[in-house]
Amino acid sequence: MRAKLMQMIDQRSEEMIEIRRHLHAHPELSFQEQATADYVAKFYEGKDVVVEREVGNGHGIIVTITGGKPGKTLGLRADFDALPIQEETGLPFASQNPGVMHACGHDGHTAYLLILADCLIQLKDELPGTIKIIHQHAEETAPGGAKSIVESGLLDNVDTIYGIHLFPFFNAGEIGYRSGFAMAGRSYFKLGIQGTGGHGSSPHMANDAIVAASYFVTAIQTIVSRRLNPFDTGVVTIGSFDGKGSSNVIKDYVELEGDVRYMTSATRELINKEIRRIVAGLEAMYGITASLTYTDDYPPLHNDPEATSDAVNYLQKGLGDYLTAVSEAEMLSGSEDFAYYLEKIPGTFLYVGAKPKGVEKPYFNHHPKFDIDEDSLPVAAKSIAEIVLGYYGLD
Amino acid sequence: MRAKLMQMIDQRSEEMIEIRRHLHAHPELSFQEQATADYVAKFYEGKDVVVEREVGNGHGIIVTITGGKPGKTLGLRADFDALPIQEETGLPFASQNPGVMHACGHDGHTAYLLILADCLIQLKDELPGTIKIIHQHAEETAPGGAKSIVESGLLDNVDTIYGIHLFPFFNAGEIGYRSGFAMAGRSYFKLGIQGTGGHGSSPHMANDAIVAASYFVTAIQTIVSRRLNPFDTGVVTIGSFDGKGSSNVIKDYVELEGDVRYMTSATRELINKEIRRIVAGLEAMYGITASLTYTDDYPPLHNDPEATSDAVNYLQKGLGDYLTAVSEAEMLSGSEDFAYYLEKIPGTFLYVGAKPKGVEKPYFNHHPKFDIDEDSLPVAAKSIAEIVLGYYGLD
Amino acid sequence: MRAKLMQMIDQRSEEMIEIRRHLHAHPELSFQEQATADYVAKFYEGKDVVVEREVGNGHGIIVTITGGKPGKTLGLRADFDALPIQEETGLPFASQNPGVMHACGHDGHTAYLLILADCLIQLKDELPGTIKIIHQHAEETAPGGAKSIVESGLLDNVDTIYGIHLFPFFNAGEIGYRSGFAMAGRSYFKLGIQGTGGHGSSPHMANDAIVAASYFVTAIQTIVSRRLNPFDTGVVTIGSFDGKGSSNVIKDYVELEGDVRYMTSATRELINKEIRRIVAGLEAMYGITASLTYTDDYPPLHNDPEATSDAVNYLQKGLGDYLTAVSEAEMLSGSEDFAYYLEKIPGTFLYVGAKPKGVEKPYFNHHPKFDIDEDSLPVAAKSIAEIVLGYYGLD
Amino acid sequence: MRAKLMQMIDQRSEEMIEIRRHLHAHPELSFQEQATADYVAKFYEGKDVVVEREVGNGHGIIVTITGGKPGKTLGLRADFDALPIQEETGLPFASQNPGVMHACGHDGHTAYLLILADCLIQLKDELPGTIKIIHQHAEETAPGGAKSIVESGLLDNVDTIYGIHLFPFFNAGEIGYRSGFAMAGRSYFKLGIQGTGGHGSSPHMANDAIVAASYFVTAIQTIVSRRLNPFDTGVVTIGSFDGKGSSNVIKDYVELEGDVRYMTSATRELINKEIRRIVAGLEAMYGITASLTYTDDYPPLHNDPEATSDAVNYLQKGLGDYLTAVSEAEMLSGSEDFAYYLEKIPGTFLYVGAKPKGVEKPYFNHHPKFDIDEDSLPVAAKSIAEIVLGYYGLD
Repeated sequence: MRAKLMQMIDQRSEEMIEIRRHLHAHPELSFQEQATADYVAKFYEGKDVVVEREVGNGHGIIVTITGGKPGKTLGLRADFDALPIQEETGLPFASQNPGVMHACGHDGHTAYLLILADCLIQLKDELPGTIKIIHQHAEETAPGGAKSIVESGLLDNVDTIYGIHLFPFFNAGEIGYRSGFAMAGRSYFKLGIQGTGGHGSSPHMANDAIVAASYFVTAIQTIVSRRLNPFDTGVVTIGSFDGKGSSNVIKDYVELEGDVRYMTSATRELINKEIRRIVAGLEAMYGITASLTYTDDYPPLHNDPEATSDAVNYLQKGLGDYLTAVSEAEMLSGSEDFAYYLEKIPGTFLYVGAKPKGVEKPYFNHHPKFDIDEDSLPVAAKSIAEIVLGYYGLD
Repeated sequence: MRAKLMQMIDQRSEEMIEIRRHLHAHPELSFQEQATADYVAKFYEGKDVVVEREVGNGHGIIVTITGGKPGKTLGLRADFDALPIQEETGLPFASQNPGVMHACGHDGHTAYLLILADCLIQLKDELPGTIKIIHQHAEETAPGGAKSIVESGLLDNVDTIYGIHLFPFFNAGEIGYRSGFAMAGRSYFKLGIQGTGGHGSSPHMANDAIVAASYFVTAIQTIVSRRLNPFDTGVVTIGSFDGKGSSNVIKDYVELEGDVRYMTSATRELINKEIRRIVAGLEAMYGITASLTYTDDYPPLHNDPEATSDAVNYLQKGLGDYLTAVSEAEMLSGSEDFAYYLEKIPGTFLYVGAKPKGVEKPYFNHHPKFDIDEDSLPVAAKSIAEIVLGYYGLD
Repeated sequence: MRAKLMQMIDQRSEEMIEIRRHLHAHPELSFQEQATADYVAKFYEGKDVVVEREVGNGHGIIVTITGGKPGKTLGLRADFDALPIQEETGLPFASQNPGVMHACGHDGHTAYLLILADCLIQLKDELPGTIKIIHQHAEETAPGGAKSIVESGLLDNVDTIYGIHLFPFFNAGEIGYRSGFAMAGRSYFKLGIQGTGGHGSSPHMANDAIVAASYFVTAIQTIVSRRLNPFDTGVVTIGSFDGKGSSNVIKDYVELEGDVRYMTSATRELINKEIRRIVAGLEAMYGITASLTYTDDYPPLHNDPEATSDAVNYLQKGLGDYLTAVSEAEMLSGSEDFAYYLEKIPGTFLYVGAKPKGVEKPYFNHHPKFDIDEDSLPVAAKSIAEIVLGYYGLD
Repeated sequence: MRAKLMQMIDQRSEEMIEIRRHLHAHPELSFQEQATADYVAKFYEGKDVVVEREVGNGHGIIVTITGGKPGKTLGLRADFDALPIQEETGLPFASQNPGVMHACGHDGHTAYLLILADCLIQLKDELPGTIKIIHQHAEETAPGGAKSIVESGLLDNVDTIYGIHLFPFFNAGEIGYRSGFAMAGRSYFKLGIQGTGGHGSSPHMANDAIVAASYFVTAIQTIVSRRLNPFDTGVVTIGSFDGKGSSNVIKDYVELEGDVRYMTSATRELINKEIRRIVAGLEAMYGITASLTYTDDYPPLHNDPEATSDAVNYLQKGLGDYLTAVSEAEMLSGSEDFAYYLEKIPGTFLYVGAKPKGVEKPYFNHHPKFDIDEDSLPVAAKSIAEIVLGYYGLD
């Protein structure tokens, strides 16, 4: 079956690229991917699969491919939303939606998985199990689509799940993996500091919110420097200090916004607790009133060691053929809502090299000039095909 | 002559109030007092005085009354600009210019001095010297009018100068004085802190301007707490911390605006030097690039002890008559460009009580509901008349 | 009577100096002035006065001179303790007690008052009232002697009280006065910060007391810079930061000692409250356990305006005679337990010039080379005599 | 040869334990290990080896075992110094030197390596190469013995080097390894901050060293929180803040001592640079004079990946026999001067489990009750024997 499947993918490489270009030209923002979802759903029309639409909190689609024989259930996921970025690539198939761009490669994710799914549908009689194709909406915008899809219960029977991301720090033909915690979790907080305004010449009649907020910023440095295990990873950034006012008026209210990163749930809880502790101390110390909203966004992404090592083993077959390297990747400080699937279902998230040919310093994901090497699409399709074959013991 | 002058003032009290109400209804912002200046100039038409207009950097007017005999030259000053405040008094003669209001009593200053000047003109043959009436523009807005009038050279021969301010913290009939430093000087600074932006999860690739600025705010607290003589007065307020951004983007640039107050020139220089020192240290310590603009606005107002005690002595005559009290006032943290005259010419600046009758907690200067007791106008006129009489040894 | 009293003082100038030199050679520390008290008591032996010894919490002596006629009661106080300083003056009558020195002029205070008291005893039949001579122990060491003497009740009937201090910033013949708050009050605090020790490489297993204490030091700067009225005076100094340890061990405990100065009781309370607030915030913010002991030492010294202006008026008579100037003095940041008398009894504390002749920069009080111009002693005696005369309307 | 060597080790297990107990009873501090060195040297007397003594900066010994055939040179190292700790184990063979204790297992290191060396000497004719046994002095005290032994040049021909440490976080029978950076490097710094002393009530006449030092402590928190790559490891601890003084005297001088940890040379340089930058900023900002001494102690320990994976491969043979597990260990924040050998010679440093039987929470290295499971000694000997065999391809 392997030879057949790989040949089918080869034959449909052009189509994959066409789909990717179509999606690229018609990007839609998270939670607004109506046309994209219609396009995807239309692709499956007339095929012998069950298609569920509007899954979760948006336009998610789950396609169930029931194999000819009973067996385990495997999930494969591709996300399909775009970003609020004005494209500057100058590509002939550049975005036709002003201010919206597929600048994170989700167009490619969807393109390869549609073709791979179709191939698997054609071969499904030989499949000893069930494959759930997850076309996910809204990866880019918290709370994301993944969490709600997990909560929908539609994946309750999935035994293992795999997903990929196209990244330009590997060449096409290279696959990156990482066992255990691999991508950062993220929390967001907003801290309002309410003091008392007054005339700049009379600080004793007021309570200066800028002073209290500044001491807060210096105090939270100790969370990373003194509270975290030095071998752990954590970041606390105050990205916004909104305290614009008049020079001679003591500011009554300041609003800070912060971003927190971590690689484990334990560190997530630790930093949360420490920020709350410092906020409580700030109120006592400076007599201000603090209002804190604190939201956990995507959790740290944790690849199951066994699923990861299985995938790495299966992929060895592709080396020398469509793959040039399968190597361990560094931890990434970016976040990804695939982490929600991995909280419930063993699996792994792979990095598929997509660095444009002849470019030394590629533009990274989320840049207005971000581009991919389209040769990465058949690589993605074959790699995941290889994993499917290995998972079901097909040859 | 004293009896005659006091009687003349009494007879023209109603006119004084009419003038004040006219000016109150037609306020003009600093440097834009065209109609007010025309009104003032028209008042002197046909009188035996020299009127100089457009003095200094605006619509200032100097009226020279040459006495019948030679002698010393005395300056008397009243300011005539208004504030960008929407009046809320509901008075029948409230401002007819939306968003502009005589909320600091300058209408009253001008009204009393016009009438007093006219009386002095009528009696000028008996006057052994010269009086310069200074109708000053733009007291409210730095760099103010006073500095430029001093620089015009037109006051070079003035031996002594007096001015007043109407204040609602004394009743009509009460005069406040203070020898030496009496009102605060003020400086303004703007500090740009240029770091390097970056992704919130990668602080090491960026240089966080919010962190550097926050440490700056904590560091400058030491200027007042450790650098100033505890018996001196100084204030350093950061009234604006403009660092609004996105939670997950490290801020590249932050702009602070500060207000500095002091009671002596020495403290002005000390604080300036210390802020520059801390800014230099901040650049070294955090690797940011700082851009500092630092401007001294009005200097501390320093009343000449002799001119002050002379005035207080002359005013004793009015006690029991039009005055109920002449008392030492506290230092004020507000600023006033009369300070520029006092840097060059001995004199004093008096506070004339104008608290509205029957009001326990009056609205203060610069409040949209600020009002005065109009009985304060003849008190002002008589008090300054008394000082003129005393100054020239007239009885 | 005035002429007689002044002449008597003149005649006993030499004796005054001898007494001062005897005391100077035999200084005793606060609360240990046994020999000094014996010497003082012996001086009054056989005189028609009531001598009470061991008054208050030490060797204090109160001598009551009952006048020939009834009238008001006046208190006059001189302190007699010395300091733990090794004298370096090289004077022939230098201290014979190693490590102890009259480096604050209390020897002179006692000498002048003994002679003045003796003169008043001789003239007491003409005196319309009672004079209480207070020879006070332990001014230099908190809690001081004054507080306990006040609490003894022996001064309950005193209507007015006067005291002096010899100071080298005026020449002999000059007297300084100040109405209202004139010398600083002082509080002391000790702050223990208990964290958790640990290995330098594992901050997350410990809770670093040095870090918490350092943030505390930066936070308390805001008390003076932002909580105090800029026209008030206050100082908060951390004079001791006891955190010596090993470089690679996280410090578990740090002890700070602080000194607080203020010119009014309101500021004393304000600073106390703010330090407690910041300590409470520190515990919440850093999870340390703080133990704070906070003691008010001598209160701010407040001279009664009427008693002060009375004294200044009486002293005018001496100008041109034994006095060259009676002038207003600056506020002093030093503290003095005469403040306790003034909390209960109207009075004033005067500064008697004692700058050594021919010296431009004199050594100040508490310096091992501190010295006085002994001509100041008869000046002190005559000045206080003048005040006694004025107070009782004697001429 | 493998069977023979393993059997020899088995037969001499008791002797190994006796040697360990002898050394344990007679511990000597770093650089003072005269008796220990004599004991070790005596062990080799009469054996066909070259013994070099007093190698490097202390009592180091290098024993060269020349094999029967030419080949590569392998280094095996054991350290033999003890710690300034008063033993509290209560063992029958506890330290007989008051205040000195083998609390880090170096007694066991030396014991196993002496026996292993003797076995190898007996079999040396079959050995295709040379083995250098390094009995190292002074591992516990910077600058340590290893650096000077490397600099002696006596190891210049060594191709590969192995060392071990006994640790109670694994059971006897377990070996831990880690490829790449595995143990922290350490630097030490002392920072003197010279301000200007003064009276606590007059901060403006002084320059408070405690305030400057406290701001320094808050500022350096940003090194770990904002300058380090969040995926790197670094610690900056101020373990000593020596600022004891009097509450009412402004402190003129404060001395801080700090400890720095890192896992890579790049981080060592980064932190050094940042501390210097902040010190320079501190001088500018607070006008103090800083004196900084900064010393790098042991470097981060970096295990050669190939040597590590070779060792792990060789050790597989022991599994099920004398080993129960060979597993990857976490990075450790402790430091070890074996790192100096690894800067010049490929090799690896292994952790040999020595957790006392029946103990759930063992006392760690450097604790007065630290103890080992002596079964770990033959495990160490066999494991290193296995590596020697594997290295030379012997079976």
